[in-house]
Amino acid sequence: MRRDRRPLFAPSRRLSPTGPSDEASEESYLLRKPGKPKSVSRREWALFIWAVLTTMIVIILSVVLQRLSARSNDDAYKRHPRPGPAPYPKPEGKRNLIFMVSDGMGPASLSLTRSFRQYHGNLSIDDVLELDKHFIGSSRTRSSSSLVTDSAAGATAFSCGQKSYNGAISMLPDHTPCGTVLEAAKRAGYMTGLVVTTSITDATPACFASHVNLRLEEDLIAQQEVGEHPLGRVLDLMLGGGRCHFLPNSSVGSCRTDDRDITEVAQKNYGWHYIDSRKQFDQLNNAKTPVKLPLMGLFAPTDLPYELDRRNMEDVYPSLDEMAQFALKTLQEATKYSDKGFFLMIEGSRIDHAGHCNDPAAQVHEVMAYDKAFFSVITFLDESDDQGVLIATSDHETGGLSTAKQLSAHYPQYLWHPKALDRATASAEHLAKQLSTHRISWPYETREELREYLQGLVQKGLGVTDVKDSELDKVIDEPIYAAWNLASIISARAQIGWSTHGHSAVDVNIYGTTGSGNLSGNHENIEVGIFLRDYLNVDVDQITKELVDASQLHNTTNGDTNWTGRIPSEEELAASMGY
Amino acid sequence: MRRDRRPLFAPSRRLSPTGPSDEASEESYLLRKPGKPKSVSRREWALFIWAVLTTMIVIILSVVLQRLSARSNDDAYKRHPRPGPAPYPKPEGKRNLIFMVSDGMGPASLSLTRSFRQYHGNLSIDDVLELDKHFIGSSRTRSSSSLVTDSAAGATAFSCGQKSYNGAISMLPDHTPCGTVLEAAKRAGYMTGLVVTTSITDATPACFASHVNLRLEEDLIAQQEVGEHPLGRVLDLMLGGGRCHFLPNSSVGSCRTDDRDITEVAQKNYGWHYIDSRKQFDQLNNAKTPVKLPLMGLFAPTDLPYELDRRNMEDVYPSLDEMAQFALKTLQEATKYSDKGFFLMIEGSRIDHAGHCNDPAAQVHEVMAYDKAFFSVITFLDESDDQGVLIATSDHETGGLSTAKQLSAHYPQYLWHPKALDRATASAEHLAKQLSTHRISWPYETREELREYLQGLVQKGLGVTDVKDSELDKVIDEPIYAAWNLASIISARAQIGWSTHGHSAVDVNIYGTTGSGNLSGNHENIEVGIFLRDYLNVDVDQITKELVDASQLHNTTNGDTNWTGRIPSEEELAASMGY
Repeated sequence: MRRDRRPLFAPSRRLSPTGPSDEASEESYLLRKPGKPKSVSRREWALFIWAVLTTMIVIILSVVLQRLSARSNDDAYKRHPRPGPAPYPKPEGKRNLIFMVSDGMGPASLSLTRSFRQYHGNLSIDDVLELDKHFIGSSRTRSSSSLVTDSAAGATAFSCGQKSYNGAISMLPDHTPCGTVLEAAKRAGYMTGLVVTTSITDATPACFASHVNLRLEEDLIAQQEVGEHPLGRVLDLMLGGGRCHFLPNSSVGSCRTDDRDITEVAQKNYGWHYIDSRKQFDQLNNAKTPVKLPLMGLFAPTDLPYELDRRNMEDVYPSLDEMAQFALKTLQEATKYSDKGFFLMIEGSRIDHAGHCNDPAAQVHEVMAYDKAFFSVITFLDESDDQGVLIATSDHETGGLSTAKQLSAHYPQYLWHPKALDRATASAEHLAKQLSTHRISWPYETREELREYLQGLVQKGLGVTDVKDSELDKVIDEPIYAAWNLASIISARAQIGWSTHGHSAVDVNIYGTTGSGNLSGNHENIEVGIFLRDYLNVDVDQITKELVDASQLHNTTNGDTNWTGRIPSEEELAASMGY
Repeated sequence: MRRDRRPLFAPSRRLSPTGPSDEASEESYLLRKPGKPKSVSRREWALFIWAVLTTMIVIILSVVLQRLSARSNDDAYKRHPRPGPAPYPKPEGKRNLIFMVSDGMGPASLSLTRSFRQYHGNLSIDDVLELDKHFIGSSRTRSSSSLVTDSAAGATAFSCGQKSYNGAISMLPDHTPCGTVLEAAKRAGYMTGLVVTTSITDATPACFASHVNLRLEEDLIAQQEVGEHPLGRVLDLMLGGGRCHFLPNSSVGSCRTDDRDITEVAQKNYGWHYIDSRKQFDQLNNAKTPVKLPLMGLFAPTDLPYELDRRNMEDVYPSLDEMAQFALKTLQEATKYSDKGFFLMIEGSRIDHAGHCNDPAAQVHEVMAYDKAFFSVITFLDESDDQGVLIATSDHETGGLSTAKQLSAHYPQYLWHPKALDRATASAEHLAKQLSTHRISWPYETREELREYLQGLVQKGLGVTDVKDSELDKVIDEPIYAAWNLASIISARAQIGWSTHGHSAVDVNIYGTTGSGNLSGNHENIEVGIFLRDYLNVDVDQITKELVDASQLHNTTNGDTNWTGRIPSEEELAASMGY
């Protein structure tokens, strides 16, 4: 550093205008006669300059040193503040923010999946998930209405940085809309994207780009997502499932209540490019030309299949990792010449569904698929020329999963069996659907025939060869709980316990890359939301103001429902719980 | 810094032996006649010295700056290493290490207790546990023999920094002893202590100061703990329960298999001061004179009561926090004139027991008692003149606790009720003992009479007024599971779920104060053990060598059992599981 700075000071020789010429030797200078006007020797000038320069350098270094030292003092000598990385200064310059949500993944899902993966791959105990390497903290998840949140309130905490009630899609308890980090990012010039494995109108993605009082209003969410939104179109990229809410109810595969074709509205009014197949996805993915945005890829009527099932249908559905990589590449390309980067939300949506079903085999593959996408984001950030941060967390835990189960009143064994999960080749949900189809086709089968069929299904799909008749009968006798009862066959053999088909209140993990230090330790979930907006330094409050204004305008000029949909009753809210 | 350093260089005037006297003015110096031996002007000397000094300072500052900068570069520019505090350099100088173990406390215990405490105290959601403020990471808990550890293997990971089998008390899978951090600390000159709420011979404390092949050998553990140990006495302080293994089987309250009085052995052969009552504890605690070490305080035959019950017997038993504060004060006093500090292990032992019983009311009070002791340690470190670190973690989770429970096949509600726990005034264990005593006294009661008695017990102790006959009958009909069935009455009303009466494999939390940065993120439990020895910089391997030598010597010269006890069969190991 000293050397680098020297040249800056080099021209200061002009400070010695009366000094000797460069050629004059030191000796001749000393031999000059006294009595002449007092002059300063050349050597003195040289020494003086040397001294001044070094003094200036000392001052500069001292200041720098003191500032650095103050920072490390904060760490080392303040005795007992929360340990963890020092808060990072506000980032500057072009940057990308990737926010990943593992819906319904609690702490037990991690140890379950890690040990399963080690068993499956015969890996050492240090061969951990990519997530494990980036674990930094935990998030407290309660909503404004309950100690146990749903995904809507959970995602509102992330998108708006505010607590709200279970069922709220970026709406506050007083039913006013709250601006989201994605909307504010779009306004600030960032590109924006959502990648999910469930419906793109489901609570988590919905909370970033729409506002409705009740999560079940997915028709309205679809409309807002394409651009029928007070702010216009706020999304540049959507990939996932859920096209049934975009198709008119006159068409096959629709679940809309009206006859509007939102895919057409999207294309005609808001310039979306729309794809709905793996083939189209692959074409775009392999194309040499940049992908045209906005792009909407809806690859299933509702959910994409569980990874455990999707593996056998790779030609039909892209994986979470494929969609994530495509989104990263596309958004980077689209922001290549921008001074702003992008905000991308990627959700491992169906970890939650496997939790609701209490299906441990489906869950471990969902978590591994999420971990793979997480690794791709890490790799992207490593290789990107732009700075960026990845934050990953869950909205809540689902299922009350325990990596232990007591099978009888006797004292429990201290173990669980990953082998039992490794034998499964299909999710309980998938098998239940097969069973249902079979029963419709063969309504007059005897119980024995049905048992025989089911036994084959269980052996092939769950890898269970010792299923009991009582277990089969339970599946047969409770058709609406067939998936749950099939899953419990595998949980019992793995000795995996579950306490509910709903959510639980345990804190969930936070993962992050360098730059996420402010989220180390234990936090409320809204602090994650606040981190997101702070990292991008975007004005969410301005967005809120505009959305509230839009609501008031709407209320004043129209007698009909507000653009944020009906305000639900308590009963409707309670009935909307799930997922 | 610049100013501080200047004086160091000040005497360098001797560099100018031919220079003018201090009094000579610059002018007169310049006016000296030429022809005389070439001399260097005084001003030149001054400038020269100035320049040299500042140059030296520049060099020093540059080096310091580069080192600091390299450290901060590590944080800021290496894109995606595990975030978290930079590894601390090895500490130097006198220091204290407090290691706290919350036996059986998994992630769900925290959110359970936090919300209960907020409910009970009508606190805001930001009013979190002291533990929450110091959350830094998580620990993977599997043992060498199972994905689900017991407390023996769990504590061996902490004490020895090595994986071993369930049931091992600081013994390795090959049945050789492994040196512990406490033994090595004692050897290095540290004072040592153990504070627990269970038997001092139970697995967790045992692992720090004894070595046996099977955790059930508590008689042997007691002997080793007082000093019948190849290294002699390694403990200076023991506080907790479990005196039954110290008393001869000829006396009341003994559970030894032999007639040896270990309290007497301790006092006569190893100089222990022995107390066994709250009164004696208070006398020592309030005494003006320093406490004499070694001190052994055994306040109950086995476990101390749960905090929920102890609150009503404060004159009989000290609390965990009282014992912890006493230990800190005593060990600090005892090391006042030493250049070494102390190593203290404090265990919230019975969080685990509440988990085994599936008793959520007992558990929240155990966790709060632990949190209070944790806060006392924080305060101690804040106020102490000596440097120190607190690390706190769990060995494993117990009970498969979920802060949610599904009560019927219908879709679950998203909530749980802290109120139901707040009504309880006694643990299920305590009530089951009362019931058992009652049944012995009134063996001919009718079922109706027994129900009536039990209903009163449930109302008074659990605060449950709507208990069903079927619930009462279950308690009556399964006497050995009475405590479990009583606890389930309260869990159902709180909507708290449990999946086992044993342990589970979920990662457990790590808490730490500044200086514990190496443990931030996700770690194997053995890394916690390695941190402990590293922090104290003690030679555990040397201890291992001596212990192994002692075993070989023993084997050579005696035909009887080794000092580490019998090597158990697989069946014995399986049967030893629990707690």
